[in-house]
Amino acid sequence: MTAPLRLGIAGLGTVGAGVVKIIRKKADLLSARSGRAIEISAVSARSKDKDRGVPLAGYAWEDDPVALAKRADVDVFVELMGGSDGPAKAATEAALAAGKDVVTANKALLAHHGQALALMAEEKGALIRFEAAVAGGIPVIKSLLEGLAGNDITRVMGVMNGTCNYILTRMQSAGLSYAEVFEEANQLGYLEADPNLDVGGIDAGHKLALLASLAFGTQVNFPGVELQGIGELTIEDIKAAADMGYRIKLLGVAQMTARGLEQRMSPCLVPDTSPLGQLEGGTNMVVLEGDQVQQVVLRGPGAGEGPTASAVMGDVMDLARGIRPAIFGQPASTLVAATPASSAAPAPYYLRFSLLDKPGALAKVATVLGEAGVSIDRMRQYGHADASAPVLIVTHKCARQELLAATRAMQGLDVVVGAPVALRIEDL
Amino acid sequence: MTAPLRLGIAGLGTVGAGVVKIIRKKADLLSARSGRAIEISAVSARSKDKDRGVPLAGYAWEDDPVALAKRADVDVFVELMGGSDGPAKAATEAALAAGKDVVTANKALLAHHGQALALMAEEKGALIRFEAAVAGGIPVIKSLLEGLAGNDITRVMGVMNGTCNYILTRMQSAGLSYAEVFEEANQLGYLEADPNLDVGGIDAGHKLALLASLAFGTQVNFPGVELQGIGELTIEDIKAAADMGYRIKLLGVAQMTARGLEQRMSPCLVPDTSPLGQLEGGTNMVVLEGDQVQQVVLRGPGAGEGPTASAVMGDVMDLARGIRPAIFGQPASTLVAATPASSAAPAPYYLRFSLLDKPGALAKVATVLGEAGVSIDRMRQYGHADASAPVLIVTHKCARQELLAATRAMQGLDVVVGAPVALRIEDL
Repeated sequence: MTAPLRLGIAGLGTVGAGVVKIIRKKADLLSARSGRAIEISAVSARSKDKDRGVPLAGYAWEDDPVALAKRADVDVFVELMGGSDGPAKAATEAALAAGKDVVTANKALLAHHGQALALMAEEKGALIRFEAAVAGGIPVIKSLLEGLAGNDITRVMGVMNGTCNYILTRMQSAGLSYAEVFEEANQLGYLEADPNLDVGGIDAGHKLALLASLAFGTQVNFPGVELQGIGELTIEDIKAAADMGYRIKLLGVAQMTARGLEQRMSPCLVPDTSPLGQLEGGTNMVVLEGDQVQQVVLRGPGAGEGPTASAVMGDVMDLARGIRPAIFGQPASTLVAATPASSAAPAPYYLRFSLLDKPGALAKVATVLGEAGVSIDRMRQYGHADASAPVLIVTHKCARQELLAATRAMQGLDVVVGAPVALRIEDL
Repeated sequence: MTAPLRLGIAGLGTVGAGVVKIIRKKADLLSARSGRAIEISAVSARSKDKDRGVPLAGYAWEDDPVALAKRADVDVFVELMGGSDGPAKAATEAALAAGKDVVTANKALLAHHGQALALMAEEKGALIRFEAAVAGGIPVIKSLLEGLAGNDITRVMGVMNGTCNYILTRMQSAGLSYAEVFEEANQLGYLEADPNLDVGGIDAGHKLALLASLAFGTQVNFPGVELQGIGELTIEDIKAAADMGYRIKLLGVAQMTARGLEQRMSPCLVPDTSPLGQLEGGTNMVVLEGDQVQQVVLRGPGAGEGPTASAVMGDVMDLARGIRPAIFGQPASTLVAATPASSAAPAPYYLRFSLLDKPGALAKVATVLGEAGVSIDRMRQYGHADASAPVLIVTHKCARQELLAATRAMQGLDVVVGAPVALRIEDL
């Protein structure tokens, strides 16, 4: 039997503690499967004395994750602290500089610094593995990077933020407002410390940028993701979508086109009978499309102790077994810096805005829509008590640029109150 | 760059030709991803002169797949001939004896000889990889063996024979008889040369036995699979199931219990709103459940040139990248010979039989059901022109043994014509 694989674990929150539990509980199973013992040499977290429901006395303690990352008795640095910069980045860099492999669940870190870190790792012959960074327990990175390695990937799509999906399905099922469900999610501890990471689509955008890199052989380009959060959505949007046979989902889509790399993460209307439309609560779903495999759909829990620890352990077991594909599927130096491209494929859009109750107001809106090349499929004006009326429009298919031009022009009208909300309709 | 990985491909049907096409068309992509050129040294098939839509002149030809498997210029033997014995087995053994890795799509071969072949391979330090043997293009073996390696797997389920699922969904949607759709499937070339491999549940049973071995660390045990085919199903069964809100699917379930390893592949009633119930045509779905990950569901095309070649290429790329987990997840010598156990968990059953139109006939049936411990939830007797009437019964939950005792007793009654059809109802 080969020498044990020795881990240093930084971050002992839910996931970190979950990983420690698995390693303690399943020692025999893990060594039977990998041919090596999996051991923990040292751990690090903010507070040493907190009870994490798992005994830590047998492991060396480091207050400083950078010191942990450099320890001679650590083969693999397991980074479960989070954060795109600060200690997580410093400790990851220290581990890579020392030639150690890194397993991380940190999507923010890799979305911002993935290319630089991968170059650093490859110079030292070290690996970064990050299955837990995307879609929780679903082995989506492994499927894309390894299972579908014989494909030209044509498109990647998915619902990859469980908190947003929880909020949207809860609004739908309980008829509650966004603010009410947001507060509920907060009480349940579902939200990140900075909630905008979730509801602003940033966390899901990080994940999409990582998948796009793996799919298309491009450098991670998070700034190239067209981001739209769910914070503007109202219960009226949810209900109007439902009336038309749709659900609203925070949907990510990445595809390579002749004009460049399209990446968008935005709330979309999807048919309520489609697998994505039926996705409830914190569950994630990722759709992988390739020229050979056609379409593979993966569904599973997007977060939580067990599922995320499962993904971390998948990476640890890969390292124990000597499974070492390139970090982003090919050497980082060969990844292309793709030009970001705006979504070109025309689609119908759902538009909601407030219209002043004045003669000719709707005619003005119709005129600017027409001038922008956007034609109206369906329209509905609701009864109202105020000076302005909520209006819903479903457009015929139009390009995103036309739609944006139209909504910009609408904001210039004296009869439109505030900014219109525009949601793409995806007939999957 | 490392030396090229040189393949010998035996079998140039749809899948074999598909693999050759991918290797010719994607040389740059494959070498960028694996760091090595993927080359074909030699090929073998039954007929040399057949046009397979792809040029073969650049490759050495071997009439005998055993000779191909032994060639010095072949690193990986790609076995795409099929069949549990005969040339496929002989050539695979020859490749392993020569210390060469094997990639195969052959579920029958591995279901029958997986343990012996794995022992042979491991003695020589060679690998057998078989992603294409289960669920076509879905990277299910990789997900189970590698992605979920930190889990105790608790259950594996799935619809894994596209032909059966095509027949069942087509009967449902077109209202056609089993015989009519069987003939249609035959015309479309969907059926194996021996159709009983498909409709008898054998092919799907092979796949389930392979997944069970990976999931539970047990030796492949195909004879331990409780098999029931779809050949006895009638359009009336499909319609009656639909009336009750169910679809009939050929469903495989494997789980480890205190009494032993349960493996069954049988037509079951599943809710028509469930993901399995909504699975249409040739699509496959596999559900993987583990103590950490909870549940991951994978869906994709179960057969066809592109999807199956995609799975073969995933294995080839793994070998090119040096990815070498143990064949069944741990050394074959450590796999346990599990005792097969009959499904214990009680379930409601759907029962259909023909009853002679005589006074007291139904009372006799009710009596033997009651004696076997099976109680009736719902019953329906149809109008009829003959001497016997079709009767449907839905039982309350009962153990499989009780159900089997009941149906055996029913066959002993002079009022029951032929053998009853019993289908488990799975409320997933």
